[in-house]
Amino acid sequence: CSLMDTHKQGRSKFMEFPFVSGPHKNIMLDLISTLEDRFQSHLLPCSLPPDVQHYITNSGTSQVSLHIRPGNTDSPMDFVMGSWVHAELPTGGSLDITSLSAYLNSSNDAPNFVFELIRSSPTMLILVLDLPPRKDLVLWPDYLKTFYEDTKLDTHRQALEKVNEVQPYITSSLFIRTVASPTAIFVRIQTENDGGERMDEIIRNDIEPISKQVLGIWLDHCACAKRELGEEDRAYVRKRDGVIRNKTIEVDLGTSFPRLFGPEAANRILEAIKEYFTV
Amino acid sequence: CSLMDTHKQGRSKFMEFPFVSGPHKNIMLDLISTLEDRFQSHLLPCSLPPDVQHYITNSGTSQVSLHIRPGNTDSPMDFVMGSWVHAELPTGGSLDITSLSAYLNSSNDAPNFVFELIRSSPTMLILVLDLPPRKDLVLWPDYLKTFYEDTKLDTHRQALEKVNEVQPYITSSLFIRTVASPTAIFVRIQTENDGGERMDEIIRNDIEPISKQVLGIWLDHCACAKRELGEEDRAYVRKRDGVIRNKTIEVDLGTSFPRLFGPEAANRILEAIKEYFTV
Repeated sequence: CSLMDTHKQGRSKFMEFPFVSGPHKNIMLDLISTLEDRFQSHLLPCSLPPDVQHYITNSGTSQVSLHIRPGNTDSPMDFVMGSWVHAELPTGGSLDITSLSAYLNSSNDAPNFVFELIRSSPTMLILVLDLPPRKDLVLWPDYLKTFYEDTKLDTHRQALEKVNEVQPYITSSLFIRTVASPTAIFVRIQTENDGGERMDEIIRNDIEPISKQVLGIWLDHCACAKRELGEEDRAYVRKRDGVIRNKTIEVDLGTSFPRLFGPEAANRILEAIKEYFTV
Repeated sequence: CSLMDTHKQGRSKFMEFPFVSGPHKNIMLDLISTLEDRFQSHLLPCSLPPDVQHYITNSGTSQVSLHIRPGNTDSPMDFVMGSWVHAELPTGGSLDITSLSAYLNSSNDAPNFVFELIRSSPTMLILVLDLPPRKDLVLWPDYLKTFYEDTKLDTHRQALEKVNEVQPYITSSLFIRTVASPTAIFVRIQTENDGGERMDEIIRNDIEPISKQVLGIWLDHCACAKRELGEEDRAYVRKRDGVIRNKTIEVDLGTSFPRLFGPEAANRILEAIKEYFTV
């Protein structure tokens, strides 16, 4: 069928990760296959329009690949979203962003999964790796205990912090800081001026094992958690999810996409994403 | 009257700050007088028992001074709490903690004020300076905008970050991380091995002006904010305040005080504090 063809074509472009280094591509493929293997039977094909699944500007200087697979009706998974962005910079270098995130629906109030690598030069990388909570952790201390303390999530943040080139990264958006969990990994990695070899070593030896462990915690303890939610709990989670998703479009994608792809294409892509972000 | 005598005696001991450096004492006195001048007519005398207002262990190695002034019934102020702790360490050095915090009651949902200096050696200091929110910032983006974005609170965190010796401090308590605002200042300052001169310079030149500005924002935009709260809002704020205060006793004071003062005295002091921490 043509939906399946569109899915396959978009997917093969997405899985190419054509502009990033070998270790960077490997970590993406590894996380995607781990997540999809576990939720194989839950995930529907990507049905985004072809020109949203892959878009390249007329000048050819910026392109984006977007792959969204919704969960089926019986799944706790709302959707899984993967993307890469490549943009040639006026300064001669390039910006490469790759991301994988998974959003649960309101049958399960467990945290979501977010992973993003932003490489603005061979020697500069920002890593975001978090299981953002879906309830106010102050009012629900049991939720904090179950998903963050008992899972020992913070040990992985601590392990990464020990790498010499790793520094905390504080985003300028107070909203993004607010949405993050207390064990969120937001780091900036700056290596010495080689061709990127040291950065690829850090990706392979430090970021890859830590990301796999955090994804493992998410799969075992969050996505597969048996949570019994009453109607009131579901309404609360739906409301909070809705605010976060709207704001994410507004402050994150909504400001970067127009700059990268021009207002018209950005608008088309954002409208397509919003369909999934609506709770 | 004897209540006033007790207040005066405890207060004069509290205001001595006998174990900290001149600049460290100055910053405490300055913040206390700024806060009290503004709320002069609102604050009642400290009515803690004398042996809670000042307590020294039998061995004389640890002592604490505690000064709590409740707000009167017409005030938005629930209470103002100041304290200092001095403990001689087995290693030969000493630990000095000084703090000032102000808690609003549920007639006003604006953030509280928290300031703490923890000096574990002449060359090592931890600073906590924050206006912790009293609502879930995800569900109330207007609250985030009003108290954190519009007040440009983050500029003060950024200014301090620029000082060479200042590093982010990540507390091991996930609960304390959760309670903090997105503009919270949690920093560790480590200076070179002088007698503490450089640290005192940082306290005078960097920490003092920044703390005064943050307290100024709190006084102008939080403590004096005109907030119209319905019964539902008040109940929500009371509930959230209650959780935070209980947990603060449990994870912060409740673990450090018994170590410093022994279980019996710690228990007596904590029970006295709990009367004010009950919402």
